[in-house]
Amino acid sequence: MERAKTDPKQTLNIMGNSILKDINSMKNPGIVLPIRTLSNVFFDEKHRIIRLGDKISRRTYLNVAHTRKFMQTLLVAAECKKIMQQNVSTSIRDMYYILKRTIKNTNENTFEDQNESDPVLEDLEAALNTLREKLHLKADRKGYIAGPIKIVDGEDTIDCTRMGSSGWAIPSNVEPEVIQFRDCTADYVLVIEKDAVWQRLNEDKFWKKHNCLILTGKGQPARGCRRMINRLHNELKLPVYVLTDADAWGYYIYSVIKQGSINLSFLSDRLGTPDAKFIGLTTQDVQQFNIPKNVTIKLNEGDKKRANEMLNYVWFKPKEWQHEIKHMLQAGHKLELEALSSKGIRFISEKYLPQKIQNKEFLP
Amino acid sequence: MERAKTDPKQTLNIMGNSILKDINSMKNPGIVLPIRTLSNVFFDEKHRIIRLGDKISRRTYLNVAHTRKFMQTLLVAAECKKIMQQNVSTSIRDMYYILKRTIKNTNENTFEDQNESDPVLEDLEAALNTLREKLHLKADRKGYIAGPIKIVDGEDTIDCTRMGSSGWAIPSNVEPEVIQFRDCTADYVLVIEKDAVWQRLNEDKFWKKHNCLILTGKGQPARGCRRMINRLHNELKLPVYVLTDADAWGYYIYSVIKQGSINLSFLSDRLGTPDAKFIGLTTQDVQQFNIPKNVTIKLNEGDKKRANEMLNYVWFKPKEWQHEIKHMLQAGHKLELEALSSKGIRFISEKYLPQKIQNKEFLP
Repeated sequence: MERAKTDPKQTLNIMGNSILKDINSMKNPGIVLPIRTLSNVFFDEKHRIIRLGDKISRRTYLNVAHTRKFMQTLLVAAECKKIMQQNVSTSIRDMYYILKRTIKNTNENTFEDQNESDPVLEDLEAALNTLREKLHLKADRKGYIAGPIKIVDGEDTIDCTRMGSSGWAIPSNVEPEVIQFRDCTADYVLVIEKDAVWQRLNEDKFWKKHNCLILTGKGQPARGCRRMINRLHNELKLPVYVLTDADAWGYYIYSVIKQGSINLSFLSDRLGTPDAKFIGLTTQDVQQFNIPKNVTIKLNEGDKKRANEMLNYVWFKPKEWQHEIKHMLQAGHKLELEALSSKGIRFISEKYLPQKIQNKEFLP
Repeated sequence: MERAKTDPKQTLNIMGNSILKDINSMKNPGIVLPIRTLSNVFFDEKHRIIRLGDKISRRTYLNVAHTRKFMQTLLVAAECKKIMQQNVSTSIRDMYYILKRTIKNTNENTFEDQNESDPVLEDLEAALNTLREKLHLKADRKGYIAGPIKIVDGEDTIDCTRMGSSGWAIPSNVEPEVIQFRDCTADYVLVIEKDAVWQRLNEDKFWKKHNCLILTGKGQPARGCRRMINRLHNELKLPVYVLTDADAWGYYIYSVIKQGSINLSFLSDRLGTPDAKFIGLTTQDVQQFNIPKNVTIKLNEGDKKRANEMLNYVWFKPKEWQHEIKHMLQAGHKLELEALSSKGIRFISEKYLPQKIQNKEFLP
């Protein structure tokens, strides 16, 4: 089920007109919002992503518990309309500053801090079934890519084989309206949790030798990075392999790339890549690749608790994951990507990754 | 006083040979290290940078208080030599992993965590009078640049006017051996604390309209970014203007860009840019530019304490800074760059910066 594509300008207008109509006919004006709590989130087995259910609520002006948030939602919506009309974009922090003011003849501020404006913006995204980027809002860019692809970004065309030691920084907004792909000849995308490892592979020109794109999200990938992976897979039909630490945080990063997150479940079909495969690390690699024990890290109580929780997650139910998580608990250790350096500085690029890819040693 | 340029390969060999000589003649082997504590740091009034003094200590093998650190220093030095010979580079985190092991027939590890290896590396930099980048070590890249300059990075030439919405990500290593400048036609460099503001200016192509380079360090600039500013100023003779929040943290960022930091005082001549000027924000801007009071932020006790300390710093002694800091304390507020957005989304690019630059309204 692909959600219907919507034009945010149009849906924003429909929302505004509906409120206007309510007011003109002396009705209590309100906005319909999907409920975004855990109670309204489910795992869509068929499409293998986390989805938002169909429970909705109505945020109305004359409900005193809603009045402040109703006002804030309209302020954010009006500002989005304005910047879209001016055809500029702004940051979510700027948006907060633009809208913050003391309401005339009161002591009340429209927003106290950015923690009030960010969730309202997510509500608006969910209500309009859109991405904040389509409302011309952006966050900091985060993450880098290199390899045989050209990126068209506005008037500029960026050749990702010619970006030196830095790679191309992935912007917050990678929607097709602003970012297009050209001349991609890569066979797959390798997504790497850690930038230091990405830099190692970039220095070795791994992407050239193995004809692939290498991409890092620098930890948990930001939205732009996840949307990029989603588009590279869906539009260019590239397989996606994910490389993280062998620990609960690494496995969580993989799961968010693959099936989306609970918090942004309304965006999973645009941010998730259910066909992504996990290339490593696993705690089973320690034995298979003869990694010295003293670079593994002992599990603490938090790690064990987290691993036991993960055993029950529906997306970790495949037997390969159950086996890996149980193995982690039994071995009593986790390990970071940098641990591979103990086998030599080029072990990861010349041995570990080529062997895993050649033998298709992936977790699902 | 420019420090004598040294070849780290050569000084590393001298250090190693000296230790070998000690051992062969049955002497206690040792390394001479500059003392890097506050007691050995001073402000060089003539060159307007923070300097390391000439107090030294000797770290020796047979002093039990030194033995472990002596061993660690030699391990780091040996690994640096190795990666320099292989002509590869690695991250400071990788370095730690490569060197971490249990010493044979003992329960002792060479390093317990990265907090042990990083300071040892700084000691080695100071002892060899070099940068870690010259020892082929790097950190994450941080910060971005755009504008009329071409960057030669290895085999690639990057045109910083054609980098789309992202800009060019500044790598950790920007030493002349790996990064060269070409065809720069800019009149000045604008250094911006916040990436969101950088993005605003990049979207408005501020660098094109005002013929400048725009650079952000994303908060406190990393070493690569500070070295980049230093080189742009010294090699291309570009004036440097710094734009930060009007708060103690922003003023501190400016001071580090300008005269270096206490911790890395041995690198100030390579990382500092004493001719840098402060373009804003100042708390005096609130009145001058009629910025609404409700986007200013009330000073808390910590802010006031910090401001009072700053009044005594030798680098904030110029009367303009004394006046600004006293004004901040008197007005009782600070403000962030985003506060300018309350005057309209393009106020910063079309009014604030052009006026300050045209009238040369800088703090020293």
